[in-house]
Amino acid sequence: MEQARQGDSGPHPEGEIRLIDEANPFHPVPGVRLAAVAAGIRYPNRQDLCLLELAPGTRCAAVFTRNAFCAAPVILARRNLAAAPPRFWLINSGNANAGTGPLGLRAAESCCATLARLAGCQAEEVLPFSTGVIGESLPVDRLVAALPQAWAELAAEAWPRAARAIMTTDTRPKLVSRRFAVGGREAVITGMAKGAGMIRPDMATMLAFLATDAALDQGLLQASLAEAVATSFNAITVDGDTSTNDACVLAATGTLGNTPLVDADSPDARAFRQALTELCEELATAIVRDGEGATKLVTLVVEEALDEPEARRVADTIAHSPLVKTALFASDPNWGRILAAVGRAGLPGLDIDRVRIWLGDTLIVRDGGRDPGYTEQAGRAAMAGAEIGIRVALGRGQARTRVLTCDLSYDYVKINAEYRT
Amino acid sequence: MEQARQGDSGPHPEGEIRLIDEANPFHPVPGVRLAAVAAGIRYPNRQDLCLLELAPGTRCAAVFTRNAFCAAPVILARRNLAAAPPRFWLINSGNANAGTGPLGLRAAESCCATLARLAGCQAEEVLPFSTGVIGESLPVDRLVAALPQAWAELAAEAWPRAARAIMTTDTRPKLVSRRFAVGGREAVITGMAKGAGMIRPDMATMLAFLATDAALDQGLLQASLAEAVATSFNAITVDGDTSTNDACVLAATGTLGNTPLVDADSPDARAFRQALTELCEELATAIVRDGEGATKLVTLVVEEALDEPEARRVADTIAHSPLVKTALFASDPNWGRILAAVGRAGLPGLDIDRVRIWLGDTLIVRDGGRDPGYTEQAGRAAMAGAEIGIRVALGRGQARTRVLTCDLSYDYVKINAEYRT
Repeated sequence: MEQARQGDSGPHPEGEIRLIDEANPFHPVPGVRLAAVAAGIRYPNRQDLCLLELAPGTRCAAVFTRNAFCAAPVILARRNLAAAPPRFWLINSGNANAGTGPLGLRAAESCCATLARLAGCQAEEVLPFSTGVIGESLPVDRLVAALPQAWAELAAEAWPRAARAIMTTDTRPKLVSRRFAVGGREAVITGMAKGAGMIRPDMATMLAFLATDAALDQGLLQASLAEAVATSFNAITVDGDTSTNDACVLAATGTLGNTPLVDADSPDARAFRQALTELCEELATAIVRDGEGATKLVTLVVEEALDEPEARRVADTIAHSPLVKTALFASDPNWGRILAAVGRAGLPGLDIDRVRIWLGDTLIVRDGGRDPGYTEQAGRAAMAGAEIGIRVALGRGQARTRVLTCDLSYDYVKINAEYRT
Repeated sequence: MEQARQGDSGPHPEGEIRLIDEANPFHPVPGVRLAAVAAGIRYPNRQDLCLLELAPGTRCAAVFTRNAFCAAPVILARRNLAAAPPRFWLINSGNANAGTGPLGLRAAESCCATLARLAGCQAEEVLPFSTGVIGESLPVDRLVAALPQAWAELAAEAWPRAARAIMTTDTRPKLVSRRFAVGGREAVITGMAKGAGMIRPDMATMLAFLATDAALDQGLLQASLAEAVATSFNAITVDGDTSTNDACVLAATGTLGNTPLVDADSPDARAFRQALTELCEELATAIVRDGEGATKLVTLVVEEALDEPEARRVADTIAHSPLVKTALFASDPNWGRILAAVGRAGLPGLDIDRVRIWLGDTLIVRDGGRDPGYTEQAGRAAMAGAEIGIRVALGRGQARTRVLTCDLSYDYVKINAEYRT
């Protein structure tokens, strides 16, 4: 997410905004208003600054990158979140404000303070987020100069423009809505995300901004977000590179007027948690589909592991193997590369005779070698489509994990080698 | 090493064999005879079978892959090495005999037994090695049919032909010699290696075959090999994919007639160890230079780590980052990607303010951000050449590691996506 894709070498074409699911249009969230304006942060005439206003009384939960070199806005957002309930999210693309040291932190603070003066709130009530190139100074003057326009244009309907403004190497905006019932009333949850490269969220995510009008207890809000992220944003990888700026925030405006949900197992909370998890999984899938250069969406299941970390270790080894990823690009059922990746994952005492590997529904490996019933034709059929399933059973226990990834294509190299040139 | 490069889609051109160092021609090793013949294992009319004969009394040391899915020849070579001192190494390219289950083991046994009958030795005195495609049955009949010719053509001068016969996706043979003094007499050590992809040796190596005419105690021989491998074959990575077939064997024929070396710190043993380590490092460097699609040779030094595993973890994270590798391909001093890789390596309590990063001699990162003296021009100059140095100081301790790697280019994708098609 920290680099410009070709499409980012200028303003995004201002054509029709394609939602992920055209049949499922986004719903505005009562208590949330947004604006997207062009601040000229990296390119002229491109909407690159998004302001999101939250109604008074909104509660926020968040998860952030675990990269030790976390960006200045991550440091400040964490600090401000601990100090006060947020009233604004201020998001820029085109510059990550990462690797910028103490000056970067002051730049982020300055943006928040300027917005606070404009809005008549405290600087701590603004959470900053940045995405784009690492290591360049944030152009504070240009960003701040665009704030009055953003402030003036805040509107409940501006989600699609906002989803576009936060993009970097993404080729399409990612915006999803769900409805669910709370106390017999219809609640809504809507979220947008960005991300295409430098994607291997680790206990956090790329940038994702979610909001619901339901009221929730703070503890339940944070627990629900952690639960949803575990199977969505934390279960995808494009290139294994965890970003310095990953963040996922969830606002509950409470505008719906319900008694705040507290019990995670109540029917209302269950409905909320399910909607949230589905939303996150849909956004996460959209990120992998839009992975830099991706031509395949690959669902990787590792089961019969001793524990979940072990399952994840095998899944990550396969998902990050350049040889597996180039074979996926070629639609080549080169299962020897999957087998070699399982073998090098470092599982102590792995009994290879118990390992089975499937491509789609086709069993390819068992008893330490190729299944006698396997045919190259069946393997080719399983690799032909745009969506590929790989399943590995380790024969060691009951734990299971599921990871989404994509292939490694010429375009991944092109996008990332031509960056900045 | 388990796939065919374009150049492997037919026989290698029979032009002049280019040694790594034309000014330093190979030396035959007294007590060693070799032959290379065309067995038609994967392609017709390509030399793909190498036989190496060792004088009676030769001692052998070896290290093998730690991939759990190790190939049938690795299993059998380990077993035979424990049973008897080897008299023959039997090496084929074009087929790895890996992922082939019990039938693969029987195939390897059958080849060794046939050679043993021909040579009048025990089957346990033959060590088998295979490299090539994973998961296909070894064509035992064709391999065995070529053994009489190989047996008839054994010659001390055949190292260059042998170094070519063991190649798969390599674009050039890798053959190196050194001379050293033992007891006032001139001894020789010569080695050949193959490997270009699926290269991340882990406590072992790709295929490398080394021989000296000096006599050494078995314990010193094995310890010297382990020592040399640590800083050579185990300190390189092309794509992070550890092979199923890695092996490195070293023979000491004793033909020189010296009293076997025992004390590692004696002058003669030191001379041997130095020659061996230099030989291995030169071969390892040749493998990275010949890395699939490689256009850059990258020397990565991580220092001031708490311990060596921690230094290696950071080095591997950088060396395997697709974003770093594509930036290297583009000669782009995109140091933010290096910084992000260091940050995601998972070092507990890493103080980013103490981390410094250099490109060549140019300091780029300190105090959590870009060095004020850094200029894009200096960064570009450091990235322009075919050899690039990256140095990371962690500010945590005294441990240091050095890893060689290469870039990620279009050709890496091409070579590995077009395989088998």
